[in-house]
Amino acid sequence: MIIFGFSNINMSTNPTVEVCFSPRLYGHKLTDTKFITVVVDILRATTSICAAFDHGVKEIIPVSGLDEAKKMKNNGYFVACERNGEILDFADFGNSASDFIRDDLKGRSVVFSTTNGTKTINMARDADEVVIGSFANIKALADYLAEKNENVVIFCAAWKSLFNLEDSVFAGALSEMLIGHGFSTNCDSVLGAIDLWHRAKPDLKNYLSKSSHRNRLNHLVSEEDFNYTVTLNSTKVIPVLNGDKLELV
Amino acid sequence: MIIFGFSNINMSTNPTVEVCFSPRLYGHKLTDTKFITVVVDILRATTSICAAFDHGVKEIIPVSGLDEAKKMKNNGYFVACERNGEILDFADFGNSASDFIRDDLKGRSVVFSTTNGTKTINMARDADEVVIGSFANIKALADYLAEKNENVVIFCAAWKSLFNLEDSVFAGALSEMLIGHGFSTNCDSVLGAIDLWHRAKPDLKNYLSKSSHRNRLNHLVSEEDFNYTVTLNSTKVIPVLNGDKLELV
Repeated sequence: MIIFGFSNINMSTNPTVEVCFSPRLYGHKLTDTKFITVVVDILRATTSICAAFDHGVKEIIPVSGLDEAKKMKNNGYFVACERNGEILDFADFGNSASDFIRDDLKGRSVVFSTTNGTKTINMARDADEVVIGSFANIKALADYLAEKNENVVIFCAAWKSLFNLEDSVFAGALSEMLIGHGFSTNCDSVLGAIDLWHRAKPDLKNYLSKSSHRNRLNHLVSEEDFNYTVTLNSTKVIPVLNGDKLELV
Repeated sequence: MIIFGFSNINMSTNPTVEVCFSPRLYGHKLTDTKFITVVVDILRATTSICAAFDHGVKEIIPVSGLDEAKKMKNNGYFVACERNGEILDFADFGNSASDFIRDDLKGRSVVFSTTNGTKTINMARDADEVVIGSFANIKALADYLAEKNENVVIFCAAWKSLFNLEDSVFAGALSEMLIGHGFSTNCDSVLGAIDLWHRAKPDLKNYLSKSSHRNRLNHLVSEEDFNYTVTLNSTKVIPVLNGDKLELV
């Protein structure tokens, strides 16, 4: 796999899996080697995106800037927008999974802007395909990627570009599933992430409760939302980036 | 702790410990909050620096550039220099621990330039103190830092700026010792690194044998050197940066 900034030098014909723990570690595509990037922001953007599609939202438009989000609001869109975990006053709602479980969103377009998640989605656009991962859709996603049979980079949104436990543990879980599907790796981040997943797996909720980001969001994330976040395989949706929009496969 | 780029927001009076997995994640000092940076490049620069001091080298001059290393060689210094794990032709020797166990180096100055290690040492100069860590001096280092009672950042040299297992596992081991000494943390990298250390601890040599960097260096690192690398507490030396030179405390 010839992607600048990644370590994978595996020469087998199996597709490879790599993990990137932070946007500051994300590389750039230099050749025409195809790869799929899985964007991960467990607390909370990518978990909420999966929840939104699972409850009937038609499409999600990720935007990085607040000005753009405000403009879309003025153009009549529903706008989900937070910074540092708090809903902004001009927005219709924030980025909790439960915010998207509303009947009036079924079949609608939603504009989405968050601290880390949408920035990461936009950074990932150099990939041949960008898909959204969370514990909610992890098995369906692993099956989808196995069928695609292309190299995969799991891109953790992190917290203000710093390593975080929840994204890393998810990356380990997905990596392990892909290796089970025959993917290969020569990436220490994959090996480390899988070991963290093994530590977390027996009691994922309790393990992620110790993460600094969970503590940072403690007053903002309800027990219900956190339970949803740490529950595996509640949906089979596969959100993919198509131009400027996230849509279902 | 008010260091841009780090996550620690602990307000207790205990000193804090943080881990930085890559030079791309290293922040900058914005205030006069004091902190000590521990530079870690387990394979192989910081392990070899500890070996060198343990065997009587008087001082080590870390230089990043090859031109500077060549100039120092022409000025009569012993020069240890590698790139991508291989000794350069103008150098006297490379950066294996065993390279420094020579009687003719006792009491001498050595110029040292490596792929990742010396770059990281030079990046760390904004700290109030820069010290060198490896498994060889880990307990002595933890005791030294506990006595200093200042905030600590453990700075992994990584491999070409990418996360690696060996530096991260060391960071976890040292973090755990410091927390045992009363240090506090609110940094997910510390928590993740400690969990990796717990996975590695029962058989450190075997665990680190799976790292991609170990495999990359497999033809260059002898069994003897690797055994030295994964052996804890073979020395009590504490190399610190003093101006342009590393010296013993």
